Amino acid sequence: MMPKELTDLSRLCVHTITTKPWSIEMAAREFSKAGIGGITVWRDALKGKNIGDTRKMLSDFNLDVVSLCRGGFFPAMDQTKRKLAIDDNLKAIDEAANLGAPLVVLVCGADPAQPLKESRKQIRDGIAACLDHATACGVRLAIEPLHPMYAGDRSAINTLEQANDIAEALDSSFVGVAIDVYHLWWDPELEKQIERCGKKKNIFAFHICDWKTPTVDMLNDRGLMGEGCIDIKQIRAWVERGGFDGYNEVEIFSSIYWQQDQHQFLDKIKSAYLEHS
Amino acid sequence: MMPKELTDLSRLCVHTITTKPWSIEMAAREFSKAGIGGITVWRDALKGKNIGDTRKMLSDFNLDVVSLCRGGFFPAMDQTKRKLAIDDNLKAIDEAANLGAPLVVLVCGADPAQPLKESRKQIRDGIAACLDHATACGVRLAIEPLHPMYAGDRSAINTLEQANDIAEALDSSFVGVAIDVYHLWWDPELEKQIERCGKKKNIFAFHICDWKTPTVDMLNDRGLMGEGCIDIKQIRAWVERGGFDGYNEVEIFSSIYWQQDQHQFLDKIKSAYLEHS
Repeated sequence: MMPKELTDLSRLCVHTITTKPWSIEMAAREFSKAGIGGITVWRDALKGKNIGDTRKMLSDFNLDVVSLCRGGFFPAMDQTKRKLAIDDNLKAIDEAANLGAPLVVLVCGADPAQPLKESRKQIRDGIAACLDHATACGVRLAIEPLHPMYAGDRSAINTLEQANDIAEALDSSFVGVAIDVYHLWWDPELEKQIERCGKKKNIFAFHICDWKTPTVDMLNDRGLMGEGCIDIKQIRAWVERGGFDGYNEVEIFSSIYWQQDQHQFLDKIKSAYLEHS
Repeated sequence: MMPKELTDLSRLCVHTITTKPWSIEMAAREFSKAGIGGITVWRDALKGKNIGDTRKMLSDFNLDVVSLCRGGFFPAMDQTKRKLAIDDNLKAIDEAANLGAPLVVLVCGADPAQPLKESRKQIRDGIAACLDHATACGVRLAIEPLHPMYAGDRSAINTLEQANDIAEALDSSFVGVAIDVYHLWWDPELEKQIERCGKKKNIFAFHICDWKTPTVDMLNDRGLMGEGCIDIKQIRAWVERGGFDGYNEVEIFSSIYWQQDQHQFLDKIKSAYLEHS
């Protein structure tokens, strides 16, 4: 079953990291001019900025702030580091609240010096420790499962099933999941776990890009929609059947695209979005 | 639970690709001199060789031929290509029989132009098409699940559960599974699926190396045991509890180690094997 075709850009959101060479002001101006509805802000794009001013700037450009990327990185063998990670997540929640972002995306982390099971426990404990503050600020937290190739040091949460497990265990309307096709497309359980996630009202975000063959870099060789082997329309159909009607967020890390003219790249994103998402 | 310590090299097998700069004759001489019990032969190491002579050479060096790597790569949208793949697998089975290798390891393949589900079906059909010949030759086939980062174009079988499913569906004592810690360490279902695999007597091979953090290349940056974050001893304990008592096969693709003196590298393999496997 295919989802309804996308015929305009009103549900398109682009991550600031996708057009990394642009400042947030430049990105906001160009996204807005292109008719894009939403922006997800990476924290590095806020460095040295007044968050209140940035919020006003994004609002003047008529952009919805979809989420703030990213919190997380909870696990560490060293307890002091775990405490610092929680502090940083509380700060990210404050930043999101000040920016008007309703959501913080969590790249959960992993410490290669300890078993994945222990890292997973620390992730759950870390999110739990941030939950009161997130609730008080009205900022939701989205656990983003990362591809198993990042299990060593970026995230011990590598399947939607694991993310669902933690979200359901924490049992709060302020904790859910970010579904990224790049991380999850290969998983034979994906359809079933998206259905489960939807039933629990835990689909908080939907990220798109494509998996190129060959992929030559583990971090910065993501493809534009249609350039790879992910059936994005199929996954969007599952996500929408699960009740999700939010933004389709284009999150592409690409050394190749970052070296190109970003205006042309944004044009390609728009076409690829309409044609292949 | 930890497994029994390894105190000698009698159950150590090294893949010819691990010491890629060496010819198979050189590898055989050095493995034998080091007291290593087994060798797994990659087909590229046989190029231009008479297989009967090579079999005799390996036997003269008192090395067990553990397996031939590799068959597989069954899926393709194009039927002619699928037929060619089956022919090549039949040829690999002949080569294994001639070499005295009791096992062919299958890297199952994936065609990025079609859904993973379709590739999986073609894998199952491809193995089924080779099974009579394998049985007649007395050569077993081991499905090797590959890490999900290879789902695009190398294998649509990315978890032990999927490999178990196919092996059990084909229901032959000539089809089983190769368990490689590099591909499977991240999987939260691993212990359970190893137990299942053992109960069905489907653990045909056990491959070891390590996952480095960071990993800088998706193909050729594997670590020596102990250099990374995989709990190899734990996984070996599960595999042995599952009834496996065959060779521990060191399979390392590493641009770094291939550039070094291979004698010194082999010394490192021996120590790492005894200390970290």
